[in-house]
Amino acid sequence: MTTRVGVIGSLGRVGSTICAAVQAAPDLELVATVDKDDSLESLVEAGCEVVVDFTHPDVVMRDVEFLVRNGIHAVVGTTGWSDDRLAQVRSWLEASPSTGVLVAPNFALGAVLMMRFAAQAARFYESVEIVELHHPRKVDAPSGTAAATARLIAESRAAAGLGPMPDATEQSLDGARGSTVDGIPVHSVRLRGLVSSQEVLLGDTGETLTIRHDSTDVSSFAPGVLLAVRGIAARPGLTVGLDPFLGLS
Amino acid sequence: MTTRVGVIGSLGRVGSTICAAVQAAPDLELVATVDKDDSLESLVEAGCEVVVDFTHPDVVMRDVEFLVRNGIHAVVGTTGWSDDRLAQVRSWLEASPSTGVLVAPNFALGAVLMMRFAAQAARFYESVEIVELHHPRKVDAPSGTAAATARLIAESRAAAGLGPMPDATEQSLDGARGSTVDGIPVHSVRLRGLVSSQEVLLGDTGETLTIRHDSTDVSSFAPGVLLAVRGIAARPGLTVGLDPFLGLS
Amino acid sequence: MTTRVGVIGSLGRVGSTICAAVQAAPDLELVATVDKDDSLESLVEAGCEVVVDFTHPDVVMRDVEFLVRNGIHAVVGTTGWSDDRLAQVRSWLEASPSTGVLVAPNFALGAVLMMRFAAQAARFYESVEIVELHHPRKVDAPSGTAAATARLIAESRAAAGLGPMPDATEQSLDGARGSTVDGIPVHSVRLRGLVSSQEVLLGDTGETLTIRHDSTDVSSFAPGVLLAVRGIAARPGLTVGLDPFLGLS
Amino acid sequence: MTTRVGVIGSLGRVGSTICAAVQAAPDLELVATVDKDDSLESLVEAGCEVVVDFTHPDVVMRDVEFLVRNGIHAVVGTTGWSDDRLAQVRSWLEASPSTGVLVAPNFALGAVLMMRFAAQAARFYESVEIVELHHPRKVDAPSGTAAATARLIAESRAAAGLGPMPDATEQSLDGARGSTVDGIPVHSVRLRGLVSSQEVLLGDTGETLTIRHDSTDVSSFAPGVLLAVRGIAARPGLTVGLDPFLGLS
Repeated sequence: MTTRVGVIGSLGRVGSTICAAVQAAPDLELVATVDKDDSLESLVEAGCEVVVDFTHPDVVMRDVEFLVRNGIHAVVGTTGWSDDRLAQVRSWLEASPSTGVLVAPNFALGAVLMMRFAAQAARFYESVEIVELHHPRKVDAPSGTAAATARLIAESRAAAGLGPMPDATEQSLDGARGSTVDGIPVHSVRLRGLVSSQEVLLGDTGETLTIRHDSTDVSSFAPGVLLAVRGIAARPGLTVGLDPFLGLS
Repeated sequence: MTTRVGVIGSLGRVGSTICAAVQAAPDLELVATVDKDDSLESLVEAGCEVVVDFTHPDVVMRDVEFLVRNGIHAVVGTTGWSDDRLAQVRSWLEASPSTGVLVAPNFALGAVLMMRFAAQAARFYESVEIVELHHPRKVDAPSGTAAATARLIAESRAAAGLGPMPDATEQSLDGARGSTVDGIPVHSVRLRGLVSSQEVLLGDTGETLTIRHDSTDVSSFAPGVLLAVRGIAARPGLTVGLDPFLGLS
Repeated sequence: MTTRVGVIGSLGRVGSTICAAVQAAPDLELVATVDKDDSLESLVEAGCEVVVDFTHPDVVMRDVEFLVRNGIHAVVGTTGWSDDRLAQVRSWLEASPSTGVLVAPNFALGAVLMMRFAAQAARFYESVEIVELHHPRKVDAPSGTAAATARLIAESRAAAGLGPMPDATEQSLDGARGSTVDGIPVHSVRLRGLVSSQEVLLGDTGETLTIRHDSTDVSSFAPGVLLAVRGIAARPGLTVGLDPFLGLS
Repeated sequence: MTTRVGVIGSLGRVGSTICAAVQAAPDLELVATVDKDDSLESLVEAGCEVVVDFTHPDVVMRDVEFLVRNGIHAVVGTTGWSDDRLAQVRSWLEASPSTGVLVAPNFALGAVLMMRFAAQAARFYESVEIVELHHPRKVDAPSGTAAATARLIAESRAAAGLGPMPDATEQSLDGARGSTVDGIPVHSVRLRGLVSSQEVLLGDTGETLTIRHDSTDVSSFAPGVLLAVRGIAARPGLTVGLDPFLGLS
């Protein structure tokens, strides 16, 4: 028995990679693809059990409402989520309690694992800083992943009762790219030849622990999306973030 | 209320560091120290609740038997443990069921976290290799920590149903320092100027995850030992490995 | 005044990248392209001053002979060179002493710089090892670049009178991918998600120096090829390796 | 024939390491040591040919004047040099033209090589940034070595006619430790467990080159000092920086 999968945004850069990955998986079947000018109805007609959505903030709410109304599980990588939007999805799900919706900012397993491990380790270390390294066409600094990692680390440190980090800096020049997010220093490197990397450095007396993720290709999203497609039926309701699908105790 | 702590092997390189760390901790009190020619009885007379043992395989069994018989919790970093020895400790503990004994091969929190994270991540990655880097006076290759990490990774891969790693190597010269442990390649670098480092590299299509631990000083053991001293009373019976004391879900 | 450039092997993966790079350079003009079934005569008719050759060992000798006979400078990235072949090129050049031929195994500037810097630094360090990391479809281990780097390092150490490196390894398991090339340990990592990387680690008391090159795309060859195209007219005769074109004192 | 060496500041942390290194070298002889309350005359009486000075900016000018006046070569690691002070030393040397004085901000060979290689490579790369990582007791950011490296890189880029680096950053938060020195971004990490490290990252299309120096001990200064002691007699006059003593073409 295979799972019947549909993809919205199937002609996009990520969407087409997801289509290829679904087709290559023996336990999944790609039964419908939808892009800009196609009707969502074809997803129902094809008998989709799970639909993956990598589209645009302008249309994603319409897509999710349609899927929930039709009892189709949704795996959503489209960005632009606010608390209001998440609340709206929850209210739709009340009428369809067995349907699952996953909204995740990042499907790269390595990035998800890095954030999880960094937050877990942070409570044991006096110092922690983040260096994120990207291609020079990136417009924002720090990166969204780095800011999210910093917030998770800050929460973990607060929960463990850790105070401010040691830092004797007295004379300092201004102007480095990067910032301090919730008390965690984030350094932003922009370098031709890089794609997307992040390093979390944790240090205490006599030792350091470094967790680094390097992503060189959009295809790195595929394994995380497939993990979600396979697990979403077992997780009714709204889930934010891929973490629970990893099955790590 | 402070916890009353004793240290056996108090004049050794690790033992003296532990003594200093206990004295610096406001919630712990160093009430007895024992080295080669001292009697273990002083530990009872001083009212020790927990005793830390960094001694030698030749004497550690005598120490642990004494501590268990007197209902004193034991935190043991001494090496040389076999299944037979662990079984012996378990049988001693039957007569003192509220006493806790922790035997751990490595108290460096970063090393423990690295092994845990590597094993957890391994199930999501097609490829994984280990590079361990040490000073050139080290006599064994691969290192014990690298071999232990490889075994944990191999178990994790087997549990996830992963087969052999991709490797098209056809022409290969022999002679590199290192080995394949349970199917996991371990590369051993020996370099003047290094102390003790290990890097676990995990890779899948389009991304890699790297977890690295660098230890520069024996003092890096102290936080892990204190964590165990504080937690051992709540863990009666025998525990092998520091992992459960980290409190990670 | 622009330089008139031709490319043999213009439809290949590297060749087409070179064509695009030449066209994008304001001081160079792409005036002729030749692939499998095309005649070399078109290169003369188009007035090529320099021709780049990324073809196959089977045809490269015919190409170079033709270019030298016609007084056209040659920049050759095709592999498969032996001492006999190099001697043959030198004999052809006797009849055309103002023509320049460059044969280089690697046009990635970073790889060339890494090899140069590693060889220069090697004389100052007691220990040096190489870790090369590639995708798992690679058939040979160690890589050609790693073996070449090891040989340059070994020459540099010999010239500086350095003896064997410190290594106390007594107990060692066999089976790691990699080898010892001219006394220099080379460790070969094969990992899905990697393209081509190499790290040279040099160590002495209290310090280490690490030189690392990461290549993620064949386009990394282009800047080195353009450097050679611009410099070849000033270097008559046969040059092996890009190093002299870097203009480093 | 051994060289007769003296050390001023022989009881300091660096000075005592230098004394030990001189004594361990078969071609050098430690014939005089001077610390705070000792007379400089003993250096002349002992027949010193070369004297090493690791003292304090307050006394170093007195030391150098004394050495030059007595025709003793000087290897100086004391800090606090200005253009005026260097000019003063040059004027003293006019009366003693065969005497050599070396003033170097850093004797760690790895740091000197890193700066040299970074400056040489910089002309070939569109992007370059520096990450320097130190213990959290350090008071200044960026480090002196990082600022010096940035200036050398900026000079090298200017000489090669390179313009500003690519950087599309539009939205940026302030507050990261570090700065932009002569147009080169320098990121300053302060982490418990680190000693002193620096990484220079160079990037261009499809590739990156990374040069990293890790120093874990003050003893890493010794080989550079001995190199200078052995070479100073052949370099009369004032030399600033260890670079010329490396003998790299």
